[in-house]
Amino acid sequence: MVASSAAELYDEFVKAGLLITAGPLGAFGRGGVFEQVLEAFDALIVRTAKVDGVESMTFPPVIDRSIIERTGYMESFPDLCGAIHSFVGNEREARAIPKRIADGESWGDLLGQTDVVLNPAACYPFYPTCRGTVPENGREVTMLAWVYRQEPSIEPTRMRSFRVREMIRVGAPDAVLAWRDTWRDRGFEILKSLALPAELDVAADPFFGRGGKILAAGQIEQKLKFEVLIPVLPGLPPTACCSFNYHQEKFGTAFEILLPSGETAHSACLGFGLERTVMALFRTHGADPAQWPAPVRAKLWP
Amino acid sequence: MVASSAAELYDEFVKAGLLITAGPLGAFGRGGVFEQVLEAFDALIVRTAKVDGVESMTFPPVIDRSIIERTGYMESFPDLCGAIHSFVGNEREARAIPKRIADGESWGDLLGQTDVVLNPAACYPFYPTCRGTVPENGREVTMLAWVYRQEPSIEPTRMRSFRVREMIRVGAPDAVLAWRDTWRDRGFEILKSLALPAELDVAADPFFGRGGKILAAGQIEQKLKFEVLIPVLPGLPPTACCSFNYHQEKFGTAFEILLPSGETAHSACLGFGLERTVMALFRTHGADPAQWPAPVRAKLWP
Repeated sequence: MVASSAAELYDEFVKAGLLITAGPLGAFGRGGVFEQVLEAFDALIVRTAKVDGVESMTFPPVIDRSIIERTGYMESFPDLCGAIHSFVGNEREARAIPKRIADGESWGDLLGQTDVVLNPAACYPFYPTCRGTVPENGREVTMLAWVYRQEPSIEPTRMRSFRVREMIRVGAPDAVLAWRDTWRDRGFEILKSLALPAELDVAADPFFGRGGKILAAGQIEQKLKFEVLIPVLPGLPPTACCSFNYHQEKFGTAFEILLPSGETAHSACLGFGLERTVMALFRTHGADPAQWPAPVRAKLWP
Repeated sequence: MVASSAAELYDEFVKAGLLITAGPLGAFGRGGVFEQVLEAFDALIVRTAKVDGVESMTFPPVIDRSIIERTGYMESFPDLCGAIHSFVGNEREARAIPKRIADGESWGDLLGQTDVVLNPAACYPFYPTCRGTVPENGREVTMLAWVYRQEPSIEPTRMRSFRVREMIRVGAPDAVLAWRDTWRDRGFEILKSLALPAELDVAADPFFGRGGKILAAGQIEQKLKFEVLIPVLPGLPPTACCSFNYHQEKFGTAFEILLPSGETAHSACLGFGLERTVMALFRTHGADPAQWPAPVRAKLWP
């Protein structure tokens, strides 16, 4: 693919039928070939994870609002949230909505906030299910989830709604750290095995505001977050396609998750950005998967 | 499964590890075995559809707000909508949110409505992509989508967030009607082939308010909606696991979709409620898929 800017790359993806334009920025559709590659890449990760006997589960794109309330999400990322509002009034009050729409006016103030929000991070709904004491060896689970971040952008890699294949480890600090190191290497190796120019680096989350800068600096200093970066957008820094977070006891404390010893459990997670990695594959190897290098095809379609 | 009420059935699903409790009503998690069956059932539908050379695409759980504005959704189903609100203020204004949360107060009024809403019907994001003139033979597409309806319930089949395998046909009225009849039979046959006690019936959408009763009566009179119903909930009416809607020129008019003749295109869609059908399978054949009748297993895992 020959695009020389992010906007051109998006157009190139659309012209090749890989993406489907759908109005709001970062909420486009995916074509059939794009999905075939996405499913094959996801299956490759799951095959790799299976050797550990990982548990599998699936949560919907909406989660309990109290999860983001308890974990300080609205302090750190208020600008990225997607809260679900709905209408709870009577028939007379309802009539105001179509009237506003007909007049081209906004109607969000006629709705009320519900008890659910869009899931901002694949692993979030898992932690409340661990409340209590985890088994001696902790928990290890995987899930595929649609996550949401309110950051409209013309960059095709900067989606508002996208899928993450997530791995989560809950347990004693040394077990969690060992798992994090194993998967940091595995995640990097999986992406390298697809002949992608991947690089591993320490990273920070995009915390909101001035206070956020201090949080980000602490995260880098303590090496709590790693990313695997791959060049996708022409002329722009490489894109994080895989991300590892060591949460220490943050979620253990928020959801009262204990080790058999009575101490608070630690946790870490690792997520592959599925669409981003698929875009990296098309960008690196071309628009037609049938023409990709044989070793890459063999990895994806064994 | 031996439950004698909807609530007991939910508990039975949870105890068997098929569902995972997650706070808000209708937004629970799905266990690994549940997902294996769901994937196998979805693959069965896709195999059946492939003989027609159907096009495949995928849209995120959020769609352009203008789609529900243009199609009268907020007139017919305001109580079911899920609108996405986010925070757009500055750092000082943002501080009010964690304060409200700490005080146990609501904070939805500090957010503003965005340009996206949760997708209420799998097919919605497809129609705007057809704007203009469709090919001579129209369009036929399939997609798997997470949809949202704001109807909290203890009935496990009445989810707020769930997956639909959707088929859509856009084209000339006679072609669309013929397709609807073919798929009405196919949908029924697929469910019967899984040894489910399925029944086909004319149906209506749950339109809002008193005016909605008239719309529903018209829908039934014109036979615009069919459903395949399967008993799932103990002591309650059977559950719609597959639903067919003939929209006539509704979406063609809303999104200016034309036939080569210059006339407005018609459309119809058919959706399988994936979780509902999987629940019907567990309810009918028991909690362990390894023990299901051999012909059912052969259909799902050929």
